[in-house]
Order: sequence, then C-alpha cells, then structure tokens
Amino acid sequence: MKLGAGALAAGLANARTNAAPTVPNAPASSTSVEQWGLFELTLAGPSAGNPFLDTHLAARFTLGHRSVDVKGFYDGEGRYKVRFQPDELGRWSYETTCNQKELAGKAGAFDCIPAKGGNLGPVGVAHTFHFQYATGKPYFPFGTTCYSYGFVGSPIDEMTLDEMVRVGFNKVRICLLPKSLGKRKPVAMPFESIGAVVEPEKENDWKTPISARFDLTRPNPAYFAHFEERILALQKVGIEADIILFHPYDAHGFSAMGEEADDRYLRYAVARLSAFRNVWWSVANEFDLVKSKSMKDWDRFFRILQEEDPYSRLRSIHHSKVIYDHSKPWCTHASLQEYDFEKTADRFRAWNKPVLYDEIQYEGNIARRWGNLSAEEMTHRFWRAIANGAYATHGETFQQTDDLPVWSDAGKLRGQSAERITFLRKLLEDSGTTGLTGAVDPYYLNAFELDRIYLWYFDYHCVGEYEFPLPEKVSFRATLIDVFAMTKTPIEGTFTGKSKIELPGKPYQAVLFEKA
Amino acid sequence: MKLGAGALAAGLANARTNAAPTVPNAPASSTSVEQWGLFELTLAGPSAGNPFLDTHLAARFTLGHRSVDVKGFYDGEGRYKVRFQPDELGRWSYETTCNQKELAGKAGAFDCIPAKGGNLGPVGVAHTFHFQYATGKPYFPFGTTCYSYGFVGSPIDEMTLDEMVRVGFNKVRICLLPKSLGKRKPVAMPFESIGAVVEPEKENDWKTPISARFDLTRPNPAYFAHFEERILALQKVGIEADIILFHPYDAHGFSAMGEEADDRYLRYAVARLSAFRNVWWSVANEFDLVKSKSMKDWDRFFRILQEEDPYSRLRSIHHSKVIYDHSKPWCTHASLQEYDFEKTADRFRAWNKPVLYDEIQYEGNIARRWGNLSAEEMTHRFWRAIANGAYATHGETFQQTDDLPVWSDAGKLRGQSAERITFLRKLLEDSGTTGLTGAVDPYYLNAFELDRIYLWYFDYHCVGEYEFPLPEKVSFRATLIDVFAMTKTPIEGTFTGKSKIELPGKPYQAVLFEKA
Repeated sequence: MKLGAGALAAGLANARTNAAPTVPNAPASSTSVEQWGLFELTLAGPSAGNPFLDTHLAARFTLGHRSVDVKGFYDGEGRYKVRFQPDELGRWSYETTCNQKELAGKAGAFDCIPAKGGNLGPVGVAHTFHFQYATGKPYFPFGTTCYSYGFVGSPIDEMTLDEMVRVGFNKVRICLLPKSLGKRKPVAMPFESIGAVVEPEKENDWKTPISARFDLTRPNPAYFAHFEERILALQKVGIEADIILFHPYDAHGFSAMGEEADDRYLRYAVARLSAFRNVWWSVANEFDLVKSKSMKDWDRFFRILQEEDPYSRLRSIHHSKVIYDHSKPWCTHASLQEYDFEKTADRFRAWNKPVLYDEIQYEGNIARRWGNLSAEEMTHRFWRAIANGAYATHGETFQQTDDLPVWSDAGKLRGQSAERITFLRKLLEDSGTTGLTGAVDPYYLNAFELDRIYLWYFDYHCVGEYEFPLPEKVSFRATLIDVFAMTKTPIEGTFTGKSKIELPGKPYQAVLFEKA
Repeated sequence: MKLGAGALAAGLANARTNAAPTVPNAPASSTSVEQWGLFELTLAGPSAGNPFLDTHLAARFTLGHRSVDVKGFYDGEGRYKVRFQPDELGRWSYETTCNQKELAGKAGAFDCIPAKGGNLGPVGVAHTFHFQYATGKPYFPFGTTCYSYGFVGSPIDEMTLDEMVRVGFNKVRICLLPKSLGKRKPVAMPFESIGAVVEPEKENDWKTPISARFDLTRPNPAYFAHFEERILALQKVGIEADIILFHPYDAHGFSAMGEEADDRYLRYAVARLSAFRNVWWSVANEFDLVKSKSMKDWDRFFRILQEEDPYSRLRSIHHSKVIYDHSKPWCTHASLQEYDFEKTADRFRAWNKPVLYDEIQYEGNIARRWGNLSAEEMTHRFWRAIANGAYATHGETFQQTDDLPVWSDAGKLRGQSAERITFLRKLLEDSGTTGLTGAVDPYYLNAFELDRIYLWYFDYHCVGEYEFPLPEKVSFRATLIDVFAMTKTPIEGTFTGKSKIELPGKPYQAVLFEKA
C-alpha cells in the first residue's frame, strides 16, 4: 500500500499557504490550472479536538462578478484542503473563510488556462435523453461495473484500469464505501477504528454496533486519498467515475451508520470529490435493499448533493426491485437494474431524462442467475438498449480460477462481451451522432438521428431482405454489421426513401445508415 | 383432384338405407364401429329446391336410457348423411327425424366395439391446465401451423402430412375456409359459384359482393368432403385438427358473408365435422383483424358451437392485437398470439384454463418480422412455454426456392426447430407426467409435477452449478439436456432435497428430474 505517498497526479494544481507540500510531484508553485482541472489549496491548521467536526473551512472563488462557494475539508495531520474545478478561462481569485482564525482570510489567485489533450470537461445531460462533455462533444456511456476498484489496492487497481482502457470502457460504477472482497482486505477503512479491529463472528454479523468499532466522526483521510488517486487515474484515461455513495453489500456495517453520520459522510465525500470533473453521484446501488434507510433518507441525500456540490455533477440512484421515482427533480437521469428495454419509450415519457440500464445482469458462470449470462445475451442487451435510444452498463462475474477478485469487484476481464460492447460504442462515435432516438413502435428495432443516422438492429430475426423506410431527399450510405462477429461490411450504393436491401438472413445483424 | 372419389377411409362405418354406397371402400354392411370411431348413415332424398335450406334431417342415437341428438346434412346429388361418434361400448340404435317424409323414421343399430391401435379417443381438458385423451392418457399439444392443408390438394397435402409425421407433431392449425395460395388454386370453393369465376382486379378487392359470386345458401359438398379426407388422414396418424372456422386472410370474400350465411356455414360445418374425434374448433385466427365482424358475432359463433356440437369439442379463438376474454364459459382453453411467457401465471389465474401460445412467430427468413425467427429462438420459445406450464405451436415461413407453398400453408419443412420441438414433446411423454405446473416466481424457469417430475430450463444463463431445491423424501434421477443439440446425458447418482449439481456453464441447457 502506498497511501498518502501517491501523487494526485496530472491536472492537479496545488497551492500552499503556510503548509508543507503534500503532493510531492505537483509543481512547487503552480499558478495555472486547466479549464475543468483541479485546483487544490492546502493549509495548515489545528489538529487538536476533532477538526472534522469543529473546523468549518470554505473558500469563495471569484472570476469577474461571478463567485463560487466551495467547502474545504480536514485531511488529517493538521492539514486542510479546499478543492476547486474552474470552468471558465481567466484569472480566478479566492479567499477562505473559517471559524478558526488561522485558516480564515487566506487569499490567492490562479490562471485558468485552456484544457489540453483528453480533457473535455465534465459530462452533462444534453438533448434531453443523451449526454455530452462540456466542450459539446457527445458522450455515450459505455461503462462497466468494478465495485471495489477504489479500495482494492495495487496492483489490482492498475490492472483493472488497464483492462478498461484495453477494451474501451468510458465509465465505471464504483463504491465509495468498502464492500466484502472475500479473503482480501480493502486498502484501509473509511473511518478511524476504535481499539483493535474486531472480526465478525460471521460475515456482516457484528455483536458490536458500527459506532463501537469506528469513530464515525473521524473519516480516514488516507482511505479517501487512495480513492481519489484512482478517480484521477480514471480521469487521465477518459473514464467517468459513477461513484456509489451507499450500498447494501456491507461487510463492515457502514450501511447503518445512522442519519447524522450518513449526512456527515456524504458532505465530507462531496467536499473531497466533487471538484474531480469525472465524478458522477450514484446515491446508492440497490437502494431498496438497504434495510436501515427509508425513502426520506434517499431523498435527503439527493438534496444534500444538490446543496453541497458546486458543480451539479450527474445524480442518480440504482434499485433492486422498487424503481425510484426518477421524475424527482434531483435525478439527472434514470439508473435502472432492468433489461426490459421495450419499456424505454414509456420511461422517457414518464421521466423525460436519459435512461441508463445500469445493471442488466452479468456475463459469467457463477451460480446466480444474475451472474451467468452468455456473452451473446449480454451483447444483445446492449444493442437492444441502444436501439431503444437508451444506454446500458456492462458487468461480468466469472468464477475465479486464480486469486484475483471477480471483475465486478476489480481485476481481469474474462468474457467475450466487453469488446463487442465497445465495438458498438465506437460505431456510435464514428457515426457523428449526438444521440439516437428510439423509433416509436418500429417494425424492427430502430434508433435514429433525424435525416442523419439510422440504426436498425434485427436481434433474433433472420432477415433476408427489408425495405428500410429511409427519409426522402437524403442520400445514405449503409453498413451491414454482425454484432457478435464485429464485422462491418459496406453495402454497395446509396439509399434514399424506401430502400429494399438484401441481408444475410441470420440473427444478430444490424444495418447502419449514415448521411452520404 | 380426386374429390368425391376419395374414401373416408379407416374408422368409418357406413350405413345405407335405400341409398347407393357413396364410399366405395367402406364395407358393404358394417354393423360395428370402434369407440370414438365414425358412424355414417347415408340416405337418398330429394334434390329439388334447395335441400341445404329446406330439408332438416336429424337422428337420435340411443344406448340404454341415454340418447344423443345429432343433425344430418345434405351432401349433394340427393344424398343425405348423419354422422355420429359413439363414445360408449354397446349396441347403439338410431332413428331419423326429418321434415321430408322419405327421410324420417329411418332406424337401425350398430355395435360400438373397443378402440384399436392409435385410437385414444378425443382430447379434452384435464387437471385444469392440461389435456388428455378420452382413455386418460395425457396429451401434450406440440403442433404446427399449415393453414391450407385442408384445401391445397394432392400431392402437397400428403407431403405435408408426411412431414408432420416424420417430425412428430400431434396437432395442426388448419383453415376450413380457403385463403390465398399465391398462383396455386384451392381444390374447390366451399360454396357453389354463380356464373363464371370472376378474378378480382387486385387481390382481395372485388367489384362484386360475395353473394353475387357464390350462392351462400349452397355449400359445395365436394369441398367439405376433401377437407374431411384430410381430417381423417390426420386422425389416422394421431394428429389433432385445430380447425379455424373464420379468418381474415380472405382471397375470395368469405370473411364477409353476413350474419345469416355465417351461421348457416357454421352449422353445416359442425354437422359434417363434429363427429371426427380429432376435431378442435378454433373460432377464428386473428379474430380482431376480421373487419366485418364484431364481438357479438364471435360470441354467437361460440354459442352455436355449444348448441350444435354433441361432443363439445375443444373451443378457442386466436387473436392478433386484442386478446379475447378467455374466461368466457365457452372457451375451453386460451389460444394466444403471444410470446410473453412470463405472463403465464397471471393468465392461469385470470382464466383458469390451459394456455396455448398458438402463434409465437415463425422460424424462417421472409421479409416480415413475424416470419424470420432463428431456429434457436423458436426452440427457446417452446422451452419457455413448457417451463411456464403452458404449451406452444410451431410455425415456419421460409422463402420458397421451388414452387411449393410456404410451410405455414402446407408443403415441406425447411427449418431446424421442428425436430427440437418434438424432442421436447418426447421428453415430456417419456417422463410419464400428466402435465407440468410452472413454479411461482422461480429462480430459474422451472415446471414440475409434485414429487414426480421437475424440469429446469436455464435459457440464456450459463449455469456452472446450481443447488436444485428438490423435495425431501423423494429420490430423483437427473438428466442434463442440451435443448438445441438434442442430447440427453444422465447425471450420475440420485438426488433428494437441496442438490448441488455441476452443469456445463453454457446457455440453453435443461435438467430433468424424474422420480427414481
């Protein structure tokens, strides 16, 4: 473990005011930060008492007449930090406020300079049902699920990241609070332990309450710092981090900390993490399986996110059996554990937001029905989602034959669907669409961008020929796609209006029309 | 064409009273009829006027204190018939009644003798959601769809039958009224033509109404006699004939004959056909697509069937978009055009009758989404139906490369699903079950007969192992089934209670447990 020592690497500017450098590799005196990069102010302050509870640090960042108020946080060892993501070019100034005199009135400035390389800014909702980067470039979520990526530790975390990059995922669902990793242990605990670590008699069954084992008023900065390193590593390779704030897979008791501790944890997490441009908030995984919380808690968490997060990062909540009312104003998009894609149009009507089928079961071979889809079925589900104008998220659970965790925690991909899925991602990106709309009651599944892109997916139909109802007056070129073999075969000619085309008469084919 | 000359072959006993033999191959003086066989009385009578309208022939068949009233029919050329299926052993006597003196008071008797060979009697509903023959042997409908089998003519009708026998179907959905056969013509028309046959300007678009082209008061006995030959040919090889009485695929206008003609046609059909033990009544195919009729017509047809059919043959109606209320008392079972098998339990609760998914789209490659399923998808749909405690019906529509009709009319099977489907039929029959019940909300699809048979179907799940929740105190042997490869592999050992078994971890496997 290399906690604390790890650099909050690229894109992070560190300002120090009477504080020792805490990020060894950061430039000694940065005065410029990329647009949507991370500015970090580190201050030395009191460590007596409980600074997590007692010290209220904030800073106001100002550009012209605009100002943004940001909360700071205690990082342990007398170290305080304020993080900020500037979103406009120019010279930003800042000044701190604090109930501790020595941390108040610290002022400075930095230049926000143009973004470089892969920095396209944060992802937001666009065109009602889709997403784009702050630069305006469309973003199509083609993500996977590695719940433990943020706390599994080296070398598995780097291995996991390498796999995501190799295959081409651009989003990952990860848990902020630890979950069971079998015989493996998380890199640290998110709160300070009280006395010796107590092992439960059996999994998730403690004789002592969580508050007798952890001081829930004292987050463990090392745990969060490690998590942040992993978020930055994702950011560097263009992967969005859909951070799951609560979950029921609780090997330590953190799902039942109580309302006060929950809210404090949430505020601390937002203060630390919200400035990272690739952060999305997933309030919970399977919220309805968390027995200790009720709907008022979930709604309150959303409101806290809205109040505390200066950047309004994307917000969602993921369910098991009971679908959350995603029409609530704080949900930026619907995050579903479902694969009934034929209901997508109804869901769009009900919620008027993007729909992410964030859990569509897992490719794998484990002894659970949710974890043993064939690669073909997982691949088809992605195509069904896209052909309905929605998005989906990959997951994989193969029985481990080595000592690596299962991919849904972290590790190595073993299945066949992942590269088929990102083949579809590339197809969408190469098409230049800003997002496809599912056709209403189509003859065969069809999603389109009016007069520009038409994608038909034939699923289990063996179509020998089809008269595609293309628009008149626009000329299209066509490509036949075998979704599992990942072949793209240009179809000769150009097409306008009703166009009958011969097809290979086998299942799992698609045809993409692009404006010629 | 060999109309009229064809023998109403095996199982038919012909009694003649002052009438020339009309069935050349029948024994000259039959006095015995098999149980559930066909007794036919042929009488000579008036041919002047319109005997179809004017002559009301009936007969009372009596065994001990029991009597059964049966309607006769005019068979053309001064020939009248009464058909009767005796269902009890013993000496039956009969006597005719008629408004024409010369046909009244004809009396006789015959012996009903034990059934032989494959004669198991008619099929009825059993155990609420299943079927059985009159002998008590379970009957599992594994049928196909050959709409034109009854009027396509030789040699295609024999070819079609050979195919059904080769593959092992035991039911077929056939239309009584003709439908379009492309450039091919039906063997005859069901009503007498008026003047020259008029070809429509375009398909199904006539300038003259049906009543100006056919005398709807005069059925064509030759058409019906041919149809009956085909019914008997099916009966001989143990195939139930699910006779579709009305349909919207109307190349001649018979779907809009008007209420009076409809009812007369229906009564004539019942008088001719109801005595054949393998007859089922399907009031319509896609009833809701027949524009000229409304719900009151469909309900009335059911009531006429109930009134006219002395044997209460199975009765159903098949829909396109609007599901008929199968809870109505005259429906013996639900006949659906659907493949949402997960709704089966709800349907059982709503209707409390067997559920036949009678149209689940077609294996094939035609340019219609309902007609180009892969063989795998068709096979899976059958397994999903059975695993939910219901039944399904096969259909096939491959583009023809020769001059044969498509299988859904009649001809040759070209697909791969048919033999997979009847493999499942044999599996059920060999298990000795009387019918499987779909488990409520099962972990994996599972249908069972309590403490005797348990069938799991894993569909797209790649199950590497599963702990089967078998009942305690019963010992089972197990067979692993690859539903598409059609392999049955015994699993070593016997199993009781919760039994963990290793499985091959690939999709489309099933496991059958049978009491050891």
